Amino acid sequence: MTTNALDLSPALSPVDYGVGARFTLSVYDSDYVRIILDALANANRDELTIETNDISTFVGGTEARVLAFLRDVIAAAAASGAHLSAAILLSRGCPGELACALPAGVDALGAEPVVLAPTGVRARAHWSLYPLLDGGSTGDHMSPIYAAIEEAKAAGVYAGSDHFATRLDGDLADVLATAANGWIAVGGVVQHVTTHLTVSLNSPSPITE
Amino acid sequence: MTTNALDLSPALSPVDYGVGARFTLSVYDSDYVRIILDALANANRDELTIETNDISTFVGGTEARVLAFLRDVIAAAAASGAHLSAAILLSRGCPGELACALPAGVDALGAEPVVLAPTGVRARAHWSLYPLLDGGSTGDHMSPIYAAIEEAKAAGVYAGSDHFATRLDGDLADVLATAANGWIAVGGVVQHVTTHLTVSLNSPSPITE
Repeated sequence: MTTNALDLSPALSPVDYGVGARFTLSVYDSDYVRIILDALANANRDELTIETNDISTFVGGTEARVLAFLRDVIAAAAASGAHLSAAILLSRGCPGELACALPAGVDALGAEPVVLAPTGVRARAHWSLYPLLDGGSTGDHMSPIYAAIEEAKAAGVYAGSDHFATRLDGDLADVLATAANGWIAVGGVVQHVTTHLTVSLNSPSPITE
Repeated sequence: MTTNALDLSPALSPVDYGVGARFTLSVYDSDYVRIILDALANANRDELTIETNDISTFVGGTEARVLAFLRDVIAAAAASGAHLSAAILLSRGCPGELACALPAGVDALGAEPVVLAPTGVRARAHWSLYPLLDGGSTGDHMSPIYAAIEEAKAAGVYAGSDHFATRLDGDLADVLATAANGWIAVGGVVQHVTTHLTVSLNSPSPITE
């Protein structure tokens, strides 16, 4: 059995398993360079791999560290008072770049739910969760999505649904944790799972219910 | 056979099939309200359903009309000279909101590739394509993704790959058409397919190759 790809799973670290985020922080303010650089400079980077390029920033590490970093950077930028949006992608189970460095069929690797201390910053988000089923699937990718939405309701941040996305509204930490924990929960049974959030903060627009 | 859900497929319009986009246009400029409203005001809305709320804008219609609208709005905002990013989600095969209004197992509904006239505006993007396989899947969701990446190379806009995303670089119209046509092609064989792009324009950051 030692040559079977399935045997790799017990030894996989979150980084080996491709746990990480890619995000773009947009600041609707002419002083955006300073606001973004200050927010990035003050966030704790311990145990994280961070690579920023001209489009977005990659953050690799454990679920708890990646989410704490996202919370801290976005909350710090929000403290400027500027209107912000953050486009966030979380991925697991498909490390590498052009091709997955893990074959399909590796045991799904879940994780403990993340717990994030509140920020005092209100965030509203559109959230989509994508279980990318591999061989052995039951063919039912919607049930884990509905279960995650029920969890969002239990967490008090579910705020309705729009086309293609679920609306979340609450403390930035609760919004991020809800999306992350849906992704982690599905990740316990499906290898390759991604989730996308567009988070809006300090918006001058009236809230749409 | 008239009560079989599969029989619905031949009569499905793009709107019935859930063809549409959700996007957030972020303008890194203190004059963002005017720039966004001007860009939206001047775009052709014929044959489209458009709903804007505090987080993002939904656009429903045929693939060709939805993509032309996205191109026109983003290009118009870019003409301001401000740095922009656009977070774009395209979806097909799962209309409705909280739940798919179409059951799994409906015949996949493809479309002709979109052709978009060039804008003269350079765009760089991170692109991810998600075939959400339903019953009857082969369990191989990566092959159609690799095929779409080969098409991006043939179109001359492939610019490498980063974690979780393929990098595109070219005229905004070509970047959007490449992502849309990957999504349409996979949509010909998989019912529920989404794709996400984060597009950056007028960035002052050096290009990362």
